[in-house]
Amino acid sequence: MAETTTPAAPTADPAGPPVDLPRTTRTERDLLGELEVPVSAYWGVHTARAVANFQVTGIPIGHHADLVAALAVVKQASAAANHELGLLDDARYEAIVSTCREIRGGALHEEFVVDMIQGGAGTSTNMNANEVIANRALELLGHPRGAYAHLHPNDHVNLSQSTNDAYPTAVNVALVSALDGLLSSMVRLEDAFGRKAAEFARMVKVGRTQLQDAVPMTLGQEFSAFEVMVGEDRARLSEAATLLLEINLGATAIGTGLNAPEGYAALACAHLGRLTGRPFVTAANLVEATQDPGAFVHLSGVLKRVAVKLSKTCNDLRLLSSGPRAGLGEITLPPMQAGSSIMPGKVNPVIPEMVSQVAYAVIGHDVTVTMAAEAGQLQLNAFEPVIVHALLQSITQLSAACRTLADRCVDGIVANADVMAARVRESIGLATALNPLIGYYAATEVAQEALVSGRTVPEIVLERGLLDAAALAEALRPERLAAIPVTPEAVARP
Amino acid sequence: MAETTTPAAPTADPAGPPVDLPRTTRTERDLLGELEVPVSAYWGVHTARAVANFQVTGIPIGHHADLVAALAVVKQASAAANHELGLLDDARYEAIVSTCREIRGGALHEEFVVDMIQGGAGTSTNMNANEVIANRALELLGHPRGAYAHLHPNDHVNLSQSTNDAYPTAVNVALVSALDGLLSSMVRLEDAFGRKAAEFARMVKVGRTQLQDAVPMTLGQEFSAFEVMVGEDRARLSEAATLLLEINLGATAIGTGLNAPEGYAALACAHLGRLTGRPFVTAANLVEATQDPGAFVHLSGVLKRVAVKLSKTCNDLRLLSSGPRAGLGEITLPPMQAGSSIMPGKVNPVIPEMVSQVAYAVIGHDVTVTMAAEAGQLQLNAFEPVIVHALLQSITQLSAACRTLADRCVDGIVANADVMAARVRESIGLATALNPLIGYYAATEVAQEALVSGRTVPEIVLERGLLDAAALAEALRPERLAAIPVTPEAVARP
Amino acid sequence: MAETTTPAAPTADPAGPPVDLPRTTRTERDLLGELEVPVSAYWGVHTARAVANFQVTGIPIGHHADLVAALAVVKQASAAANHELGLLDDARYEAIVSTCREIRGGALHEEFVVDMIQGGAGTSTNMNANEVIANRALELLGHPRGAYAHLHPNDHVNLSQSTNDAYPTAVNVALVSALDGLLSSMVRLEDAFGRKAAEFARMVKVGRTQLQDAVPMTLGQEFSAFEVMVGEDRARLSEAATLLLEINLGATAIGTGLNAPEGYAALACAHLGRLTGRPFVTAANLVEATQDPGAFVHLSGVLKRVAVKLSKTCNDLRLLSSGPRAGLGEITLPPMQAGSSIMPGKVNPVIPEMVSQVAYAVIGHDVTVTMAAEAGQLQLNAFEPVIVHALLQSITQLSAACRTLADRCVDGIVANADVMAARVRESIGLATALNPLIGYYAATEVAQEALVSGRTVPEIVLERGLLDAAALAEALRPERLAAIPVTPEAVARP
Amino acid sequence: MAETTTPAAPTADPAGPPVDLPRTTRTERDLLGELEVPVSAYWGVHTARAVANFQVTGIPIGHHADLVAALAVVKQASAAANHELGLLDDARYEAIVSTCREIRGGALHEEFVVDMIQGGAGTSTNMNANEVIANRALELLGHPRGAYAHLHPNDHVNLSQSTNDAYPTAVNVALVSALDGLLSSMVRLEDAFGRKAAEFARMVKVGRTQLQDAVPMTLGQEFSAFEVMVGEDRARLSEAATLLLEINLGATAIGTGLNAPEGYAALACAHLGRLTGRPFVTAANLVEATQDPGAFVHLSGVLKRVAVKLSKTCNDLRLLSSGPRAGLGEITLPPMQAGSSIMPGKVNPVIPEMVSQVAYAVIGHDVTVTMAAEAGQLQLNAFEPVIVHALLQSITQLSAACRTLADRCVDGIVANADVMAARVRESIGLATALNPLIGYYAATEVAQEALVSGRTVPEIVLERGLLDAAALAEALRPERLAAIPVTPEAVARP
Repeated sequence: MAETTTPAAPTADPAGPPVDLPRTTRTERDLLGELEVPVSAYWGVHTARAVANFQVTGIPIGHHADLVAALAVVKQASAAANHELGLLDDARYEAIVSTCREIRGGALHEEFVVDMIQGGAGTSTNMNANEVIANRALELLGHPRGAYAHLHPNDHVNLSQSTNDAYPTAVNVALVSALDGLLSSMVRLEDAFGRKAAEFARMVKVGRTQLQDAVPMTLGQEFSAFEVMVGEDRARLSEAATLLLEINLGATAIGTGLNAPEGYAALACAHLGRLTGRPFVTAANLVEATQDPGAFVHLSGVLKRVAVKLSKTCNDLRLLSSGPRAGLGEITLPPMQAGSSIMPGKVNPVIPEMVSQVAYAVIGHDVTVTMAAEAGQLQLNAFEPVIVHALLQSITQLSAACRTLADRCVDGIVANADVMAARVRESIGLATALNPLIGYYAATEVAQEALVSGRTVPEIVLERGLLDAAALAEALRPERLAAIPVTPEAVARP
Repeated sequence: MAETTTPAAPTADPAGPPVDLPRTTRTERDLLGELEVPVSAYWGVHTARAVANFQVTGIPIGHHADLVAALAVVKQASAAANHELGLLDDARYEAIVSTCREIRGGALHEEFVVDMIQGGAGTSTNMNANEVIANRALELLGHPRGAYAHLHPNDHVNLSQSTNDAYPTAVNVALVSALDGLLSSMVRLEDAFGRKAAEFARMVKVGRTQLQDAVPMTLGQEFSAFEVMVGEDRARLSEAATLLLEINLGATAIGTGLNAPEGYAALACAHLGRLTGRPFVTAANLVEATQDPGAFVHLSGVLKRVAVKLSKTCNDLRLLSSGPRAGLGEITLPPMQAGSSIMPGKVNPVIPEMVSQVAYAVIGHDVTVTMAAEAGQLQLNAFEPVIVHALLQSITQLSAACRTLADRCVDGIVANADVMAARVRESIGLATALNPLIGYYAATEVAQEALVSGRTVPEIVLERGLLDAAALAEALRPERLAAIPVTPEAVARP
Repeated sequence: MAETTTPAAPTADPAGPPVDLPRTTRTERDLLGELEVPVSAYWGVHTARAVANFQVTGIPIGHHADLVAALAVVKQASAAANHELGLLDDARYEAIVSTCREIRGGALHEEFVVDMIQGGAGTSTNMNANEVIANRALELLGHPRGAYAHLHPNDHVNLSQSTNDAYPTAVNVALVSALDGLLSSMVRLEDAFGRKAAEFARMVKVGRTQLQDAVPMTLGQEFSAFEVMVGEDRARLSEAATLLLEINLGATAIGTGLNAPEGYAALACAHLGRLTGRPFVTAANLVEATQDPGAFVHLSGVLKRVAVKLSKTCNDLRLLSSGPRAGLGEITLPPMQAGSSIMPGKVNPVIPEMVSQVAYAVIGHDVTVTMAAEAGQLQLNAFEPVIVHALLQSITQLSAACRTLADRCVDGIVANADVMAARVRESIGLATALNPLIGYYAATEVAQEALVSGRTVPEIVLERGLLDAAALAEALRPERLAAIPVTPEAVARP
Repeated sequence: MAETTTPAAPTADPAGPPVDLPRTTRTERDLLGELEVPVSAYWGVHTARAVANFQVTGIPIGHHADLVAALAVVKQASAAANHELGLLDDARYEAIVSTCREIRGGALHEEFVVDMIQGGAGTSTNMNANEVIANRALELLGHPRGAYAHLHPNDHVNLSQSTNDAYPTAVNVALVSALDGLLSSMVRLEDAFGRKAAEFARMVKVGRTQLQDAVPMTLGQEFSAFEVMVGEDRARLSEAATLLLEINLGATAIGTGLNAPEGYAALACAHLGRLTGRPFVTAANLVEATQDPGAFVHLSGVLKRVAVKLSKTCNDLRLLSSGPRAGLGEITLPPMQAGSSIMPGKVNPVIPEMVSQVAYAVIGHDVTVTMAAEAGQLQLNAFEPVIVHALLQSITQLSAACRTLADRCVDGIVANADVMAARVRESIGLATALNPLIGYYAATEVAQEALVSGRTVPEIVLERGLLDAAALAEALRPERLAAIPVTPEAVARP
């Protein structure tokens, strides 16, 4: 295999530097042999091999800031446990901790260069973290990069860990953090719908089932339903997030904890809790926890639920705002950009369209997660990298979608009360409300005449003398039709 | 394991019958031991084991008539080849052929009792066929059922075959046959849309993009697009069907043809072609063909394409017929059943709703096929039964959907020409057509005044003196607006 | 449209019976006109229309016993509420209740004949139930079928209800009931794995990550992980089931409760709770609840999670039992049926293969549910029938899969302790355990020599004098390697 | 809505520059009002609005070089048609053409800044292209950016086009170009498998069905099947690519061609063919073609097929190379990177693992494409941007996967002939080959004794005197067992 002698893609000069110039590379070594790594790189030989092996999506680990920060906090927690157990001396411990703090603060993310889709069950991500932390810590200790005799990526940064416990733990931390962002975007959307529900609480309109005119309701009830849906999805998502608090740090390779020191798992978990402010717990059965992506599949399913409902809501917004002349035209979305170069004045519902597309992407990611999870074998799932990439994309895109929908669409929605009122007056569904007064049979006759003649239900009822004007007005009072309670607030938030 | 001694579910009396009563069971034997089988059953011990093992969907093989007939024709073709090679004597050959003809004619389908979802890569389906054919052939030869010394399910009916070649070949035959039904249902739908396209060829309406009013077109153009879409999908489906003409009969267990006599593959394929009237060919690489469900994945993908477009078309029909008062109301679908017990006169688009649900089922089946195909290992895909079940369901459901949509919906669609014409007159999109005459800038001003004032574009143009009445009439002539050519036929079928 | 005059498929004689023969049909009427219905049928005109309209899957509502029983209990609860509110007299109430009890006891399920995939948002299912209950109740009251003046499908059986609240409530009841079956099947599987975990608690074997030999563990740990996985999935499924306890009975058409009497929702819910023994509650926002299939999407996602893990477990069982000579061969699955007609003695893992296929079907159903849920519009999701069909299939098939896997596979698994022990002895992964004693560098040299030479790690360690025999034996003691605690119970269920 | 007055995200200084400093922004205007755009930007107001509206994936159009180049070539072809029709003067034409050539050569891709997931049916992508081309062309003509009176993004660059024809045409061009890369990567993989098939043509091994030992075959046959599978998928992919040659340029907004000059469609298509060297044709029915994403769904389905088979192949490679001691161990994959920090010498199959993950991503993208296609309404599919993003990712990732698999895995695979030969000798499946010589009954007895005793089939046959040594040797001759023909080439490529 040429790979052991030919340098991998990111390295500079395989032949070595000429005599008189400063070296631009340093030589590192792994079980495949030596490799030149750029002097300026914080990453090392394992990262270089992985970069050469995986040129897939063009999206590096560093694209997902939550994941980089999570790797750093797991390494920091582990270092704290090792230090407390006497396995890591003060100087190395301090250097590692300082480095992890820098990374968590946003530094060095551009050094996380391995592609998000990678073979090896996350080993390359873990080694990228180990190498970057080691080299920055060496720098803090006054050593050159690559001087691993002083502080080693494996022996010190990865101490008491295996990829198979450190990496999934970091993934959990990253997901919990990313979900915070999504949950707060959902609150923002929920509030936006809630404000509109209150604003539209007394505007009566025709409700529709199966796209056919049904019975009256208020636009406030319609928007309140949107609000409640987002709120319920948010509650489910919060529940799914708690599943991520169970970690397997201390499992090492397959969950038996071989070569991890006694007490390490509990200490590392406690430090992780302290550093993140979240109640992480060690899984009861580490063999099971190390091979089981169940929480990821679960989370993905709930994200899909969020996506489904968001897209349905946006489809409704597009339907209700269809027109301006040949559509439903009950609401107007705020114009965000010109819609057409050929049709003067055309404005399109671009924000809801974007949200539905995000939903379709999320639903696709769910299938990816499903297949990758099902493909796990025996003591490990080797396909977690694509699961993680899919989940992080779903979360950040849904978060952007919710925030944008709230700020750039819902907040600016205007109701066309006249259109809605006119359609209620013309509606044949009004006959339903007369059932108790004139009977189902007479109501059906009125409905049929209305449909055939093009006239309205009230006209026909009065003409036929079925009710007098006062009784009819009472029967068709908006509050009665749409079950509007005394206070509009109660409607908006039942 | 109790299974070897306790009789399987469908057997009658494990203890054997009492002395003086006629026996209701016969004893059969396989490698797990003896088992009582009902005397009246044409199936035998292997089928009984499978019925006991697989109580999954409640849907037996016999539910799919195309599959049962295909198993029979493959057995018949194989018997003909074996007979021609001198491996099967005349009497047994004749009895097997007669039986296969009966089954192809519709007999004995209720004897195909194994569940469609079964382990064993189709072995149970193949053995169900072998046993039913053997026992009916024994009957024709004057022997009791179970007298396998005279004619054996494996040694004679399955002669020169393995499940791994006979079963997938039968599946291909079944799919080709089922696809015939779907293709003719699609022709029916295509024709129904075509007739409506001609009928509606000169009715001008507002075209819509992104649910917003765009520029004029005809309803005939809209229905012609539906017609063309079905036609294109049909062409793609026909192409996919040709992939199924490549079979692996003669491959035996893994494609090396071990124990299959020289010349068998070619003969069996020729007989299958003769019996079915279709140009089956033997795959060039039988090892590959035996393990590769590529044609199934491909077919499923094309069925999904058909489903996607059908559902989109039905969504459009529901949109265009929304109302009757508070929707688009451009067409009226024929009423097929009462829509509501609570709302007098409500009629819903139940046929398009059914079609979209079929589409969602087909799209789900595609994921099932995908996962099952990906799970194949080494020389065989053990998961073909669920692939076959999914594909046969998709084909028969799509076929029913297309036929029903044509007969019970499209044929009865009525256009509401007045509604469409009124909306064209009100449409702001008319301004687009004036760009070349009054300029984009003036057109935009007209459009904006129309939107704000609620008046029509022609009113404003005349009031502003931008065009005289004659020029305006010419500019907004329906033929010009919707690019209607001289002959309506040409529009309907461009 | 011919449908109003031509009788639908299930009717007998459109021309009416001849004078002197007993009539085989009765005439019923709906808004489309008259229709002949078989005298013997408990269903009526609405069901007949639906049967003619929807010839899709061939699977009638009656296939899902849980759904039929649930429709009956919802009608019974509603009748009790109406009776209590004084809207339904004693005689009709008693007749309806008696009928519902019969149906819940298993009677008349064959009268639920409408196809599971149907347009109309469940109206046809609801009307099938209304008609069957009305006609059976009429019979109990001494009236002929069809004498709806005495007891009417809509006016009495469907009183205070709309399809849009009665149907989804019945669906929730059906799903909760079906889930009971699945949950108990999962307990059975969990217990089966647990027994094997205890049986295999001290058998040391090579653990594997990424299909490559890793470090030692016990077979008991492996089976314990299977046990715990089933248990966790069961816990998640129970949580998802609780979401189904929220119902929308009383919402009527769109959630505004138009025409439903005051107090009805609370009473009907209370009676439903009493009759089913489950704590159903009325949704806080009925407009939202009537349009939101969120709980179905959620449930489907969790069923998919169950499917993913079951399939992974079955893949592992197939891997571990691969062989008998050229595979891993660590366990032997009980033989359930002959595996091949061509290969003497071949036995295949048919039960795990069946389970994985069920998983693929369930995952496909999840996509169907997702698409149908996303397609909902405004105040209703018209596509619930396919959602319900998909969910009920997923639940019953998973239940069958778990039960069969427990009874016909796991219970009969035999461990091949000698094979496992031999592979541990040969394993290069043993070098890992020596890291703390001889150092990582020396351990690597030993590992490399073992790999190249084909010899074992202990041989080389002793030959090189790195450890004495006693120290080596202690280091490689099974209890140490696989972290086996003192009591085997503790391993099996950590 | 604040958007009309507050500058969008990418603009510099909303308050305007201070008096004495050079301006860093220019003012542009659209129907929402004025907006400041950086002086240095080639993009303009429409792009700026879109960047502000769509902060979704973080992946800009410029990430997909094929798409940027395709937009440029479509604009160039359109300009040529307009010039030929006398609608575009020489100077503007030359400037536009020069700019398009630069972009196709790789320039200005970083100016394509709109997010890949965007609302508006591609309008923002089209306008980003129009603006960049206009401003660079203005520069070439000696005008400042933004001086659109001289050359306008809409009036000149977008002349005779609508987003709804220019954008999907560019997408087709981009996909065809990207597919070229994938198809050549597939050839590379096919050749790699073919070379190995020849190398391994005479190495006999145990074939496996359902993970159980079956009958002998050669490793060459196994690799030949991989080769043929890639080849067949490539053939199907080429067919799908031809569907993309049908374009709708000239359709303008909805396919009626309103405002497109006579002859434009044919001329633009001809120029596009000339510039790309591909036989593009104008669709026969432009209304249909403008709304129909059928070719995208089709392509996605075929890409999924490729993914399924690639993943299955990689699963096989991982199975066959499992070990080194406790797995199948028939082949050894070349080591590409260290596999574990905790287990000395562990090497993992990272390349096949990466490929399967790509496959899972592609299968997820297929669901995204499906949902987006089904969501199209009436005259347009508004969700093409996410379709395009999904397809381009699938193509480029599959291409990387095939290339990497060929170069970094298949080429370096080494066969372990001794292991395979030993397993054939021990194999019980050998008994199958003796059926014709000693009978099925005796063969079964031999097989059973072999299984129970742990001895080999030949040993038992000789001991029982069923065959003499010479006859046995002939019966078990590798050429016979695995159906190896005289020339190994014939086996490798049947």
